[in-house]
Amino acid sequence: MENTYPSKALAEAVEAISSLPGVGSRSALRLALHLLRQPSDKIHRFASAIGRLADDVHYCSRCMMISDGDICAICSDARRDHDTICVVESVRDVMSIEATGQYRGVYHVLGGIISPMNGIGPSDLRIRELTERVKPETEVIFALSGDVEGETTAFYIYRRIEHTGCKVTTLARGLGFGDELEYADSLTLGRSITNRQIFNP
Amino acid sequence: MENTYPSKALAEAVEAISSLPGVGSRSALRLALHLLRQPSDKIHRFASAIGRLADDVHYCSRCMMISDGDICAICSDARRDHDTICVVESVRDVMSIEATGQYRGVYHVLGGIISPMNGIGPSDLRIRELTERVKPETEVIFALSGDVEGETTAFYIYRRIEHTGCKVTTLARGLGFGDELEYADSLTLGRSITNRQIFNP
Repeated sequence: MENTYPSKALAEAVEAISSLPGVGSRSALRLALHLLRQPSDKIHRFASAIGRLADDVHYCSRCMMISDGDICAICSDARRDHDTICVVESVRDVMSIEATGQYRGVYHVLGGIISPMNGIGPSDLRIRELTERVKPETEVIFALSGDVEGETTAFYIYRRIEHTGCKVTTLARGLGFGDELEYADSLTLGRSITNRQIFNP
Repeated sequence: MENTYPSKALAEAVEAISSLPGVGSRSALRLALHLLRQPSDKIHRFASAIGRLADDVHYCSRCMMISDGDICAICSDARRDHDTICVVESVRDVMSIEATGQYRGVYHVLGGIISPMNGIGPSDLRIRELTERVKPETEVIFALSGDVEGETTAFYIYRRIEHTGCKVTTLARGLGFGDELEYADSLTLGRSITNRQIFNP
């Protein structure tokens, strides 16, 4: 494939870009040619922004969230409730929950989910670090995906922390706001009937 | 928007990636987080592959194609027919035609197309460089898009080279191989009737 590229540098850039998930070699070529049309300093700024991902992004030593320093902005915010720890799979989940503006506690980023199929076991995740943060007065909220892997992970962690007597909760599951009944999957619909809530207009 | 990113370096990488055409800020975040999960040296290799686009990609001084050196591989290939010059808009068009394996002449990359709507006039393109290459024995093939801008560009160039007495041709237009009549647009279908060819089984 590389032999068909008119320049080695172009071929290498296309190869690098097409290593990104969801980017095929055609799109990668389109993106590389787009970059090539930019002024040289803009290309260098682009490259150095990528390079700084390796050098300048740190992880919070408390919650494992991406951070500019040793402790992230959320963990160092005294106005947040440090006794409520929301357990998530990834950095993106923290960003999604933060975007709702509805949560005032802190987080713990596991860095993955227990998945024997993908060879990911409990020791690959930051579960020990979580158990060290849990005190009897803590509320642990599981904000994990609703599939078997998410439930397995939640259950595994639950067994590790239940002895502390802490409160353990999980995200409410049910129909989304604005969802129409006829398009809901039956598992979600079934659970939202079982877990029905008091009507409170 | 940047304020919602947990790290300045991440925000800057997302901003850079989302400057690519067709990449929104959500996809850019997904790609940045994917990179972030890679080993540090892989991120740096990625960044330097991009940076080399600015430093190591040259343009052929004859046909303006991307090249590793001063003269591209096609222009320096003695087995190719240097009296047949295929005029294209972009580097990608050269790659598309080369991929067919059907063309043994050389190219001239205009670097765009005459488009008053986008403020691109003849002087923004490498038309003068083309006219300097055309000799009476040359065949110039217009391989430009079939829209008004492509035809305007072809006509403009034609007026500049017709005095040499060179041969001027253009890509055959008609139904694609395997196209079904019922799905062809009427302009293409009309032209393919007007320009019908001798049946030669």
